[in-house]
Amino acid sequence: MRDCVFCAIARGEEEAFIIYKDDLLIAFLDKFPVSVGHVLIAPIKHFTNIFDMPEDIIGQAFILAKRVAEAQSRGLGAQGVKILMNNNREAGQEIMHAHIHVIPYGVPRRGRLQLSRDEGEEVARILREALV
Amino acid sequence: MRDCVFCAIARGEEEAFIIYKDDLLIAFLDKFPVSVGHVLIAPIKHFTNIFDMPEDIIGQAFILAKRVAEAQSRGLGAQGVKILMNNNREAGQEIMHAHIHVIPYGVPRRGRLQLSRDEGEEVARILREALV
Repeated sequence: MRDCVFCAIARGEEEAFIIYKDDLLIAFLDKFPVSVGHVLIAPIKHFTNIFDMPEDIIGQAFILAKRVAEAQSRGLGAQGVKILMNNNREAGQEIMHAHIHVIPYGVPRRGRLQLSRDEGEEVARILREALV
Repeated sequence: MRDCVFCAIARGEEEAFIIYKDDLLIAFLDKFPVSVGHVLIAPIKHFTNIFDMPEDIIGQAFILAKRVAEAQSRGLGAQGVKILMNNNREAGQEIMHAHIHVIPYGVPRRGRLQLSRDEGEEVARILREALV
């Protein structure tokens, strides 16, 4: 979809620290992380939120969320992980392309300050290597 | 598991306002709802959280979360839905039996005051009827 930042990331036209990509899904670092290693998982195809996502992609996306949570534990020493999907603006959704937040706890907080290039490159490398 | 309240709900030994149950999963009203119609989805079998849940049950659980979200929209007029899973105490998990919160927005807030029997029975009936 034109003017959708997550579609642009999926097409490779907008920069992002990508940790995983396949035909259905992409996972990349949130540019305004709650904590170090805060990841977003989005379908490659544009869906608004869970309400218009096909069931098979929902299932695959949350299975990937588990794998990302394991990588956050293994690679970053996370002690816990919050998995969160806001659907529609009333529930706090800001980017209207479906996405799941995978937020590690027991790692340094970032308070949604913009991710630096150095932190982005290092954390993305760690998570890519820890993702199995 | 002995002394696990969600295992007791799954066995029918602890009271809950159940809106859905099958061989793998159970969905029931949170006893301390954030908002009217706040639902929890849990596996019937005891898992601690997403880290020890099999992938097929993870997929099925979040597909059920979408169906519950649709029921909250259809039955309660929810305008948005937050889907949240806290994994481990560091990430806010309080009951150590895996569960997903499905929290409707655009409905009255309940501020985690204990659910009354009247509200529980009425809301559970609405959601059961709206779940397709």
